[in-house]
Amino acid sequence: MNFRLVLEYDGTEFDGWQSQAGATRTVQGCLADAFEQVAGAPAAVTGSGRTDAGVHAEGQVANARLETRLDPATLLRAVNAVLPRDIVVLELERAPEGFDARRCARSKLYRYRVWNSPVRSPLRARRWHGVAAPLDVAAMRGAAVALVGERDFSAFRASGSDAATSVRTVTRLDVLGESGGEIVFEVEGNGFLRHMVRNLVGTLLEVGRGRREPGSMAALLASGDRSRAGPTAPPRGLCLVRVDYSR
Amino acid sequence: MNFRLVLEYDGTEFDGWQSQAGATRTVQGCLADAFEQVAGAPAAVTGSGRTDAGVHAEGQVANARLETRLDPATLLRAVNAVLPRDIVVLELERAPEGFDARRCARSKLYRYRVWNSPVRSPLRARRWHGVAAPLDVAAMRGAAVALVGERDFSAFRASGSDAATSVRTVTRLDVLGESGGEIVFEVEGNGFLRHMVRNLVGTLLEVGRGRREPGSMAALLASGDRSRAGPTAPPRGLCLVRVDYSR
Repeated sequence: MNFRLVLEYDGTEFDGWQSQAGATRTVQGCLADAFEQVAGAPAAVTGSGRTDAGVHAEGQVANARLETRLDPATLLRAVNAVLPRDIVVLELERAPEGFDARRCARSKLYRYRVWNSPVRSPLRARRWHGVAAPLDVAAMRGAAVALVGERDFSAFRASGSDAATSVRTVTRLDVLGESGGEIVFEVEGNGFLRHMVRNLVGTLLEVGRGRREPGSMAALLASGDRSRAGPTAPPRGLCLVRVDYSR
Repeated sequence: MNFRLVLEYDGTEFDGWQSQAGATRTVQGCLADAFEQVAGAPAAVTGSGRTDAGVHAEGQVANARLETRLDPATLLRAVNAVLPRDIVVLELERAPEGFDARRCARSKLYRYRVWNSPVRSPLRARRWHGVAAPLDVAAMRGAAVALVGERDFSAFRASGSDAATSVRTVTRLDVLGESGGEIVFEVEGNGFLRHMVRNLVGTLLEVGRGRREPGSMAALLASGDRSRAGPTAPPRGLCLVRVDYSR
């Protein structure tokens, strides 16, 4: 049987979505363990994508293949009862055998939260990236325009990334909020390369600090050179908000 | 010298504001230690009130008496550099000798956050109180009306509270949001008895669940009987937002 899941997790204490060398506590691993505890047999869990260590999700989608006699509502409650407190299944329903959360995903929405203040914020410590220097929000908005559309994002791709192509379509890149407070980047697209959202944000933050021209994004994309883009913004600010599937 | 401080802290890992029997890690203690490290001599730190263990603040006010040659901006940075990451001084300025953060406080604003959903929320685990049963927000708003004004809040006072009088003025008690999502209680008043905000919220939540009549608040106040009010809502949902002083 195949089930479609919607997940929320606080990524702070996870080594990311998927088991990698040295990773001890992964979202996928916790889910597989919970389903095995409840159903008594191993479950194969596939996520829409692999969130990095420290990255959060309020709407990650996955599918789980397992055999069980429990109805979906009972399975949902049983799995949540055994999952650790930093992860929860928000929705669980039967899915067609052909549903694969990764291959069928059509679009994703990420949010990146920046707390722009000279003083750090303890209440935002887990979910916001603090930037002390004043940020020019209008400049970041201006730069973001060139990053929307079907583009080759090689310059924003993590080294060692193994995707076949680095062409992706970003349908939206909004910079919400204002300097000296909460600034939220909303990035929506049909797919993202490894570290791509964090590299986009890290580069836009350099624009916001006046270290990079708002008009320089087109040339940066054209260069395809990762070493010319900004640093990877830290994972704590990033949250996978929603994954869309065509019906 | 006397300094006025505005503080933010995540109360999750504190044993409250003030040292009590068995308390090992208090907000007041961390602040006194930090000032002593920076100024080289003990500091006397007084808060506007004693937040309980687990209660947060985004605008607690305190005053600190200490001798230092550092100017306020330098002292602010130095203290924040040695404070643990779950507490920060947002503002620090010289204050008149007569300024006492507790005695001079005229009004306080608290927020209590409730996540109303059958499924728990890992991303809200530290700051929101989860209530699974549907809550009737209109009923809670109706009940709140009778709690606004100058009243004897004996029925909402923690046992063992040692305040001379239990008469307080609540100037505002708003219930924001809607059933099945984020519900926020905003309570403003000239002073609060120990556990008073959490007892008000705990009682209103019983109204929201249909276990108590919205029209029953006046009789409850008149009874002055703590055992007739609802349970104390858990500390994690509570945040001291602002303390006002007359100029």
